Amino acid sequence: MIVELISVGTEILLGNIVNTNAAYLSEQCAALGLSCYFQSVVGDNEERLTLVLKTAMDRADIVILSGGLGPTEDDLTKETAAKVCGRKLVLDEKWKKRIATYFAAKNITPTENNWKQAMVPKNALVLDNLNGTAPGLIIEEKNAKVILLPGPPGELIPLFENSVRPYLETLTNGALYSQTVKICGVGESMVETRVKDLIDAQTNPTLATYAKTGEVHLRVTAFAENVKEAKKLTKPIVKELKARFGVDIYTTEEQVTLEKAVLDLLAANGLTLTCAEACTGGLLASRLVSVPGCSDVFKSCVVPYSNKAKRKLLGVKKSSLQKYGAVSAKVAEEMAKGAVFTSKCDAAVSVTGIAGPDGGSEEKPVGTVFIGCIVKGKLTVKEFHFSGNRQKIRESTVAAALTLLRSGILEYIGKIAFGKE
Amino acid sequence: MIVELISVGTEILLGNIVNTNAAYLSEQCAALGLSCYFQSVVGDNEERLTLVLKTAMDRADIVILSGGLGPTEDDLTKETAAKVCGRKLVLDEKWKKRIATYFAAKNITPTENNWKQAMVPKNALVLDNLNGTAPGLIIEEKNAKVILLPGPPGELIPLFENSVRPYLETLTNGALYSQTVKICGVGESMVETRVKDLIDAQTNPTLATYAKTGEVHLRVTAFAENVKEAKKLTKPIVKELKARFGVDIYTTEEQVTLEKAVLDLLAANGLTLTCAEACTGGLLASRLVSVPGCSDVFKSCVVPYSNKAKRKLLGVKKSSLQKYGAVSAKVAEEMAKGAVFTSKCDAAVSVTGIAGPDGGSEEKPVGTVFIGCIVKGKLTVKEFHFSGNRQKIRESTVAAALTLLRSGILEYIGKIAFGKE
Repeated sequence: MIVELISVGTEILLGNIVNTNAAYLSEQCAALGLSCYFQSVVGDNEERLTLVLKTAMDRADIVILSGGLGPTEDDLTKETAAKVCGRKLVLDEKWKKRIATYFAAKNITPTENNWKQAMVPKNALVLDNLNGTAPGLIIEEKNAKVILLPGPPGELIPLFENSVRPYLETLTNGALYSQTVKICGVGESMVETRVKDLIDAQTNPTLATYAKTGEVHLRVTAFAENVKEAKKLTKPIVKELKARFGVDIYTTEEQVTLEKAVLDLLAANGLTLTCAEACTGGLLASRLVSVPGCSDVFKSCVVPYSNKAKRKLLGVKKSSLQKYGAVSAKVAEEMAKGAVFTSKCDAAVSVTGIAGPDGGSEEKPVGTVFIGCIVKGKLTVKEFHFSGNRQKIRESTVAAALTLLRSGILEYIGKIAFGKE
Repeated sequence: MIVELISVGTEILLGNIVNTNAAYLSEQCAALGLSCYFQSVVGDNEERLTLVLKTAMDRADIVILSGGLGPTEDDLTKETAAKVCGRKLVLDEKWKKRIATYFAAKNITPTENNWKQAMVPKNALVLDNLNGTAPGLIIEEKNAKVILLPGPPGELIPLFENSVRPYLETLTNGALYSQTVKICGVGESMVETRVKDLIDAQTNPTLATYAKTGEVHLRVTAFAENVKEAKKLTKPIVKELKARFGVDIYTTEEQVTLEKAVLDLLAANGLTLTCAEACTGGLLASRLVSVPGCSDVFKSCVVPYSNKAKRKLLGVKKSSLQKYGAVSAKVAEEMAKGAVFTSKCDAAVSVTGIAGPDGGSEEKPVGTVFIGCIVKGKLTVKEFHFSGNRQKIRESTVAAALTLLRSGILEYIGKIAFGKE
């Protein structure tokens, strides 16, 4: 079945708020096996909303509108939908009582326009909204079911989960299942080339690639009569991808990030981590700390931005700074060694580079980065050349540092022979 | 003039990502005085994209498409737009060279599909993308200008700022001028209350408030026959805002961030900075380092995530950790003092808190944060209680730390009497 989403609200068109409702509803509908081909955003304007709604009802089986159910003058989603469906608005006694109770509980006297929210399209299904004064509504037309939900996520999400999802489940005949395969250390076009045959041959399940900074995500999606069957369909493709990309796959779980995968790998092997960041300036540590419970593994980080700090905090040799420069393999090595020495951690990552826009040279252009990694005494230092602006270079560096560290751990536990890169 | 936005990407329809590009572009277009009546999201599908694009070109003067410019099989925005506009795709030699250089710098051999990105619609304007291999494109048709931008925000935003905004400014007849007044340390509703009379009375210039984490931005926008006249119109309002908010305004320049304002203030007064971050884990340092040239002022940071590291790196007393706990005013004080002592910097900020989701208690719930600040020997420690998830709490903490540091500097240079908060 085909679903279409319409978000109503001038504040979205003005960019004052991000349309998270659309993302939530899309994900929910996809999980129900509903195909969503179009989403629209339109302001609180009867003429334009009518146009968008009619178009949606012509091409979709289910149309979900969110927003514009408030008590104020400019909220006209319900009125417009009723008109498009040729329904009168009638008073819903039950909801009128609800509104009265709601305000009584808050010791507020409802204003005249609050009662407007008790008016519903004739013969519409009225869905209970436990968190507001606007009910959810379902208008069942021949060509399409029109579902109206309030805009505030705190009202929309519970309403969807309690009333809309159960309703949609009675309509759908089948379910969708997606499995994500996350790869690090391999470029997008390289990944694309290596799975081109699978993508060309895809029908059900389908395979799609998504490029992230320093990562590529592959999503395998199957449709079947139920989730169990759909899941079964994805298995052979996921197995094939594992065979093709091996250890470059760091997870097959949607919610696991690269930093989490690395922290889990360290924890599973009883290893503690410290880091020393120059050009990334705490961005790596910040990503690690974004993972709840990281403190079991991640112990400390130093950001020795000045040369003096590199010497004082990490014992980098003055002679090395003078002979090789702060951005060099030698200094990356001494930073990593110093970090391990001062922290007594099992593993360390060090980063020194030129993020730009200034500071580049013929010999060491902007984007030149040296990353050092030590796992249980085994040192690796790699040189990288990233492009983009300062922020992009720093993000690419962090992804590369996590990838290098991951390789170091995998080598330590004997999963890979190093130098494969 | 009327603008319409089309976001292309199956990942948006599936709800895998939130459509932040649409919010960014909407806000930018609104600031340029462009009216946006419709936004659409469509998948990587030629037929449906063609339908949406034709509809948009019929009702808007400018159509901005984002996404689907990648090198992979399913990226077909450019091909579809070219077909709709009846243009051949021709090789852009300059961009082909750019792609070659891009990969050479990375020591990667481009695969066949990378060269696809050097093909552009005949006579299209090619916009430089410094952060990726897909150029921005502008196709000027009689009825509408069609603008194509890559999906990754890290590419889209700089491309818009460097090339698209200047282009759009040449289209809007008459000129719009916006001046942003950025405020830190005052809550959104407080700011709104204090400018309500101005907002109610607004015609030209208009005044809009935008809530950011720990900041509120006020945008004064005027429309006139030329920028000079428009600028003149904004002056009195900006002057009034300065009178009302005084030192709480940290800048009136669009491109100046809070971290940049603080670094500039330190530099102007010949002060150096170090920081010590526990719960923020490098997020503060990372924001400081995101500012080019920060090294003149920012010297170092330590992230003592474990108690051991707090003692070893900053000399926090074991007794203080035991008596008051790691998250306490006393430890924040010792962290700041230790940071100044070890770095010999003029100023230091220290952060210790509970970012959650675990670790909270009756006495110190999740969101409890202590921030210490020392400027030339003058110590201030403040307790904060932030809400939201782990990431939100950490971001709020960084904004508060920058705001507290700014107050400390202002006090040191005699601009404010402290304790005003």
